Amino acid sequence: MDTRTGLPVVGMVGGGQLARMTHQAAISLGQSLRVLAAEPDDGAALVARDVRIGHHTDLAALRAFAAGCDVVTFDHEHVPGSHIRALAAEGVTIHPSADALRFAQDKRLMRERLGELGVPVPRWAPISTMDDLVRFAAAASWPVVLKAVSGGYDGRGVWTVSNMDSAGPVLDSGVLLIAEERVALRRELAVQVARSPFGQVAAYPVVETVQRDGICVEVLAPAPGLEPAVAVAAQRLAIDLATALGVVGLLAVELFQTATGLLVNELAMRPHNSGHWTIEGARTSQFEQHLRAVLDYPLGSTAPTVPAVAMANVLGGAAGGMPIDERLHHLFAADPGARVHLYGKQVRPGRKIGHVTVLGDDPAAVRERAARAARWIREGELREEAGCLTSA
Amino acid sequence: MDTRTGLPVVGMVGGGQLARMTHQAAISLGQSLRVLAAEPDDGAALVARDVRIGHHTDLAALRAFAAGCDVVTFDHEHVPGSHIRALAAEGVTIHPSADALRFAQDKRLMRERLGELGVPVPRWAPISTMDDLVRFAAAASWPVVLKAVSGGYDGRGVWTVSNMDSAGPVLDSGVLLIAEERVALRRELAVQVARSPFGQVAAYPVVETVQRDGICVEVLAPAPGLEPAVAVAAQRLAIDLATALGVVGLLAVELFQTATGLLVNELAMRPHNSGHWTIEGARTSQFEQHLRAVLDYPLGSTAPTVPAVAMANVLGGAAGGMPIDERLHHLFAADPGARVHLYGKQVRPGRKIGHVTVLGDDPAAVRERAARAARWIREGELREEAGCLTSA
Repeated sequence: MDTRTGLPVVGMVGGGQLARMTHQAAISLGQSLRVLAAEPDDGAALVARDVRIGHHTDLAALRAFAAGCDVVTFDHEHVPGSHIRALAAEGVTIHPSADALRFAQDKRLMRERLGELGVPVPRWAPISTMDDLVRFAAAASWPVVLKAVSGGYDGRGVWTVSNMDSAGPVLDSGVLLIAEERVALRRELAVQVARSPFGQVAAYPVVETVQRDGICVEVLAPAPGLEPAVAVAAQRLAIDLATALGVVGLLAVELFQTATGLLVNELAMRPHNSGHWTIEGARTSQFEQHLRAVLDYPLGSTAPTVPAVAMANVLGGAAGGMPIDERLHHLFAADPGARVHLYGKQVRPGRKIGHVTVLGDDPAAVRERAARAARWIREGELREEAGCLTSA
Repeated sequence: MDTRTGLPVVGMVGGGQLARMTHQAAISLGQSLRVLAAEPDDGAALVARDVRIGHHTDLAALRAFAAGCDVVTFDHEHVPGSHIRALAAEGVTIHPSADALRFAQDKRLMRERLGELGVPVPRWAPISTMDDLVRFAAAASWPVVLKAVSGGYDGRGVWTVSNMDSAGPVLDSGVLLIAEERVALRRELAVQVARSPFGQVAAYPVVETVQRDGICVEVLAPAPGLEPAVAVAAQRLAIDLATALGVVGLLAVELFQTATGLLVNELAMRPHNSGHWTIEGARTSQFEQHLRAVLDYPLGSTAPTVPAVAMANVLGGAAGGMPIDERLHHLFAADPGARVHLYGKQVRPGRKIGHVTVLGDDPAAVRERAARAARWIREGELREEAGCLTSA
């Protein structure tokens, strides 16, 4: 508790863009997020006052960080469960718990648990040897998706292999793996739900996520053309999962929409890229909602603010060209309604350095504007579009 | 320029809630506001990383602060013009300029200039002696409003006097004064406009401001029932004033709406309480707009996001009673759509400690919800309303 203001202190382990945007939300609630950052120039460390430098695998650093926090939470899933248990045993309030978080940390455990709960997931199997893989591929057919059991994100830790030759190096790497069928999907969806210790839940509208090279590039909210019954089923699924797994905070459920129904792809228990659109697009942003949930505050309204929202991630482009500040000028001139969020990162090709959100009435129009804005910040070059040379 | 990100560094002199909320906006633009705070526990100093402690009347502190800033701006009007001129002469980019800001610093100068520009203001006169006052009152009739030429805000520096007896102590205080007629006003309005060095201007919708004891307690956006022609005239007036006075950044024009037209009451050249509703209620918040303007970025859309917005200031209540954190719980339970902004201040009676914004379709409904939410945070007591005992 901050004795000056009488308001709580939330500590977030990890200093990336999720902590950065959570800090923005914390400011409105009268707080200042305490951040455990690995480096002083992590995105959140650049903008918050109460920053401690330390690594999330260092129990002593975590313990020192937690002292004085009313609640500790995470901007990623990489804190070892044993550390979370140790802190909880010492009286630290920490959400989500190690028992819940392990289902977001371990893809094998998650699939086993979802199987027990009767929640549909793609066909999968744990894989240790080439024999295991060949047996799985015989049933599921090539190509097969290999996934590292833990530690992957943004396309890392995922390999689509077409035969034994291409699978060999992955199997030889010593990484713990599962194999998964390559699902014939219509598209990817995601749904976020917040859950408080009291047990209150609040689900956001279901969104469509568009991936390129395993990285989320666009989010469309709500998912265009989604049948209402499917949307409700997805929200119900997320609420039931949050409750069954004992999640406190946000749960993002990534889904495959197939001809025969929904399959769960992955889980995340923190603010999530699929929810960045909520900053302007929902009455309560996912970042404030996460704070409310872990603080056991009553949850905020998840109502959308407009009929159609599109979020496009800004990936770092090639070095050189127009300076980013100048690109921003051009973008702002071309689209005064585009909402830009930059994460304070140095530009590296393919790295998520920010996102753009566009709000409106027409899903196709907002999608086109968001994609164009993100491309403009990334590339900053004049390009020919529909026969016209345009600066955005 | 931040060499890591390639983005500009904005320095804001003053560490109050305006700087605090500007920092939130700066984060989205990939920046981190540099704040010159008088005290380490000023609202903005609590939440920003790049904080320097120093006083806004100390030229050496200002000079050290400005080094490395791409542009310097203000969260209040109290920096001496001579200091601003000195910095500008040394090559600091500083907005608004001393030449513009003096019209927000000096109520007499402002009225003289507006008179030259033909902009209607209430009848007024400079006052040095009781004879001056008696002469003014003879023409304008008692009661008369006395205003300190500089330094007043939130009702301070303003005295309504009914006769020579009540005016005596004010005149004897040695404060430089003007006298102003007490205007028979229908209501108070305000309009904000942003102007960039390039000369681009963008006006927000005209709002109604509701004062109690000289302090703004509510803002209704757009001003309910305002005739479109009057709204356009007010926006045009603000744009013309910003241009004529050479304002860069935000200009807030406080207006009296009377039976015979609009009169200018006061000017402010910074983000302003009458614009807090823009955080959620306009596509671009006043805080981001101020940053864009002083950076000479193209300005953002000022379009409202909903038909009706109400902002209610949260004033500190009496000591004791329910802790503020518990009041927040109750408010969030009672109104999940209310948007709360707290400034990190210790509660003192009458002090602005935050604000609440409610968004919707019906002006009366959002006003009632905002007022109730603000009252709940202030008082935190069960109260009887329309025969029901309610917690909000």
